[in-house]
Amino acid sequence: MSDSEQELGITESKEYSTGDWYAEVVQKAELADYAPMGGFIVTRPRGYQIWERIQNHLDGWFKDTGVQNAYFPLFIPEGHLEREKDIVEGFDPEVAWVTQGGYDELDERLAVRPTSESIIAPYMSQWTRSHRDLPLRLNQWCSVVRWEATETKPFFRTKEFLWQEGHTAHEDSDGAWEETMLRLEQYERVYEDVLAMPVLKGRKPDHDKFPGAHTTTTVEALMPDGKSVQGGTSHYLGTSFGEAFDITYIDENEDEQTAHTTSWGLSWRAMGALIMTHSDDQGLVLPPTLADPQVVIVPIWQDDNVDEILGYAEELESTLDDAGIRVHLDDRDHRNPGFKYNEWELKGVPLRIEVGPNEMDEETATLVHRPDGESETVDATTITETTEDHLDTVFAKLYASAEETLEGEIREAESREEILGTIGQHGGYVKCGWCGEEACEEPVKDAIAAEIVMVPLDRDEEPIHEECAICGEDAEETAYFAKTY
Amino acid sequence: MSDSEQELGITESKEYSTGDWYAEVVQKAELADYAPMGGFIVTRPRGYQIWERIQNHLDGWFKDTGVQNAYFPLFIPEGHLEREKDIVEGFDPEVAWVTQGGYDELDERLAVRPTSESIIAPYMSQWTRSHRDLPLRLNQWCSVVRWEATETKPFFRTKEFLWQEGHTAHEDSDGAWEETMLRLEQYERVYEDVLAMPVLKGRKPDHDKFPGAHTTTTVEALMPDGKSVQGGTSHYLGTSFGEAFDITYIDENEDEQTAHTTSWGLSWRAMGALIMTHSDDQGLVLPPTLADPQVVIVPIWQDDNVDEILGYAEELESTLDDAGIRVHLDDRDHRNPGFKYNEWELKGVPLRIEVGPNEMDEETATLVHRPDGESETVDATTITETTEDHLDTVFAKLYASAEETLEGEIREAESREEILGTIGQHGGYVKCGWCGEEACEEPVKDAIAAEIVMVPLDRDEEPIHEECAICGEDAEETAYFAKTY
Ligand SMILES: [Zn+2]
Ligand SMILES: [Zn+2]
Repeated sequence: MSDSEQELGITESKEYSTGDWYAEVVQKAELADYAPMGGFIVTRPRGYQIWERIQNHLDGWFKDTGVQNAYFPLFIPEGHLEREKDIVEGFDPEVAWVTQGGYDELDERLAVRPTSESIIAPYMSQWTRSHRDLPLRLNQWCSVVRWEATETKPFFRTKEFLWQEGHTAHEDSDGAWEETMLRLEQYERVYEDVLAMPVLKGRKPDHDKFPGAHTTTTVEALMPDGKSVQGGTSHYLGTSFGEAFDITYIDENEDEQTAHTTSWGLSWRAMGALIMTHSDDQGLVLPPTLADPQVVIVPIWQDDNVDEILGYAEELESTLDDAGIRVHLDDRDHRNPGFKYNEWELKGVPLRIEVGPNEMDEETATLVHRPDGESETVDATTITETTEDHLDTVFAKLYASAEETLEGEIREAESREEILGTIGQHGGYVKCGWCGEEACEEPVKDAIAAEIVMVPLDRDEEPIHEECAICGEDAEETAYFAKTY
Repeated sequence: MSDSEQELGITESKEYSTGDWYAEVVQKAELADYAPMGGFIVTRPRGYQIWERIQNHLDGWFKDTGVQNAYFPLFIPEGHLEREKDIVEGFDPEVAWVTQGGYDELDERLAVRPTSESIIAPYMSQWTRSHRDLPLRLNQWCSVVRWEATETKPFFRTKEFLWQEGHTAHEDSDGAWEETMLRLEQYERVYEDVLAMPVLKGRKPDHDKFPGAHTTTTVEALMPDGKSVQGGTSHYLGTSFGEAFDITYIDENEDEQTAHTTSWGLSWRAMGALIMTHSDDQGLVLPPTLADPQVVIVPIWQDDNVDEILGYAEELESTLDDAGIRVHLDDRDHRNPGFKYNEWELKGVPLRIEVGPNEMDEETATLVHRPDGESETVDATTITETTEDHLDTVFAKLYASAEETLEGEIREAESREEILGTIGQHGGYVKCGWCGEEACEEPVKDAIAAEIVMVPLDRDEEPIHEECAICGEDAEETAYFAKTY
């Protein structure tokens, strides 16, 4: 391997230096670069196309279920944010403030949107007159800015990030609650069916709800280093925003009612979780649902058979392309096959097809799976079906591997010591009885920076133990402790 | 007509109070509302879906021709903008400045992106090493902010607007110039084939080029009130950005070369031009390419035949829906057909299908064209083909009408007085010989606020007159004067 090949490859270890490895994969697979100012990144085409595919899936499902896209201003006047602060306990976002426009000081500071409830809700109020206007389901794909001073970690922790935020209004609690769960299920589906990652669905403990929410639901994904990522949240807001922003309607009996609202969001953190979950010490690993190309064909030629091999490879390429498979033929003549293998492994292409003299003579092709290097030489006459099967298999391998990570990593504990010891030793989730008091989370948080990432969705579910593992009082619910991203 | 029906309708006249009429159409057709701070708007679902369809068309064409989407930060450090100011004559955008993050003053002000050359070019420099890295074609769909203090006019003049900005680098002038023209042609195509509007292609006069550009090309659309709208611009930047930002590459002979770059953008101003061009005193008019729904079915029933009529209408709806036509059956029972006609006319649905007892008995449907009310009763057994034909006809009518507006409105003049008189009387374009000096535009600008919106694309084209219409010196090219949006 030449120097330049070594430079191209990943040098950090996923197991032993997860953070550095992650940063290296993101940069060397050309997903993102760091921006000149701390906390910001540049999303390169290979990264952005993953986000576009996630968007396309979710956006299609949203539209199929009654959601309309809209676009609200990037800036929110300080007065609007203050209004939300006054009415919504705990709302005090750290934001970027625009104070000058052109050469003038502004009379009122403008916040760069940290989330859009306070600018959207007044319009929901205007647009909702009668029960016939409900449900009202709005969504926007946009960037938001939160001025948190933490180390930059592309897609996981950035001051500006891309997301979608859905905001809906409904006649009653049932409608809004159904909406909350529908969006949570769509988030679960995008993780499971598109990102090849199982997730846990749950509820945030009351002290960690979205400010103003009645209930915050979450999908949580376990990373290979044993930490949990909050993968998307869907909030049932009850009538708190409806009352604060006067989102009312005239019902069928001509009575005025307050609407029940929801909001729900999924950000490019999903991409961070995806990269962290599947990738390895050779670089990026992508499921075929998100990869472009899905298949790379690498021809193996000698000086005396270049044309024939290339012709054979081109035939395969055009067959796969016609079938709608995203395929790339790497016909560069200044690179040898080994270099090409490394490069496409680094960039996460799920399936490699090698064609050399043997394959040509026997009308076959050799398929190699990115995640584990498993290879099979197959009949080229049915290459489309076979390739589709193998892509499905690669997806299934990725899912199974992530599922295995998750399954062994939900443990139980019955005391503070046991929680600390188990998470300290294994990471993952530890579930235990919990009295419901935030105070009982503190000692775990202080000791090992693990917190209650969720409790069961069903409020009536019996806690797994009768006593709170920390204080020994009666347990009200089951808490899932984990370290987090 | 009841009071509420009158309120629903358009009260202003397109011909006599174009500005007020435009604002009324935008709001009553539910395309946009005004934001709480001047210069900003809220784009409602009916407006945003038009932008999404324009995006989808252009984005598909971009991707088919080698463009990759990316996402660069919302903020640009002041130092970066200053660098562009230093090297690019005339670059001094009025921007919104972020000066505070959270509770702290920032060390360096951050501009909310007014355009992204100065943040993208340094990365193009990093990513371009060899001639094999070229062409590099990046695009982003985003919002930009320009702090210009003018009256808000939705989609035409807003401090924040949505657009796409393409940025490309090429080995040589030929490659970059081809790119410039390809994007200009795609802009022409989106106007002609999607927005049903003919445009003129031309070049901006040198004094009105994009700062730093070698050549700025433009598509110009004529509005019914005789003013020209700059519909999209594509810039050949030569090596000015390449030199300033060190976008260099090693060519096939191992020599270092400077890349030639382009940039090109189209904003939601296209939507403004669309609304202004086709709509009328009944409200919004949309071409079928952009409308959702494309077809509204209005059943006309009596108490004794509601079920039969509705069943018949539902059959038609499902036939059209199966064929991929965007169709909506307006089965509201608390509104009469007249109200529904008015509402869907206001909202710009291109084709209405009326079905009453006659239509049901004779297995027909009555099709009514939104632009001119022309109607035809047709055989329902071939409703899909017939509807598609009629949608094509509606598109053709809109295009023909816009073309007629344009064609009669390009006149010639041979003196300053003639330019002023002709534009004063008719609006539209006036072409004349021009010496090339900005000074000769001034007297026209000062007198009637008309300017040189373009000159012919071909630099070698002979001017239509031998002398400059203003100063009488030798004409260098043909100038197109017009008032502008
Ligand atoms: Zn306790
Ligand atoms: Zn002159």
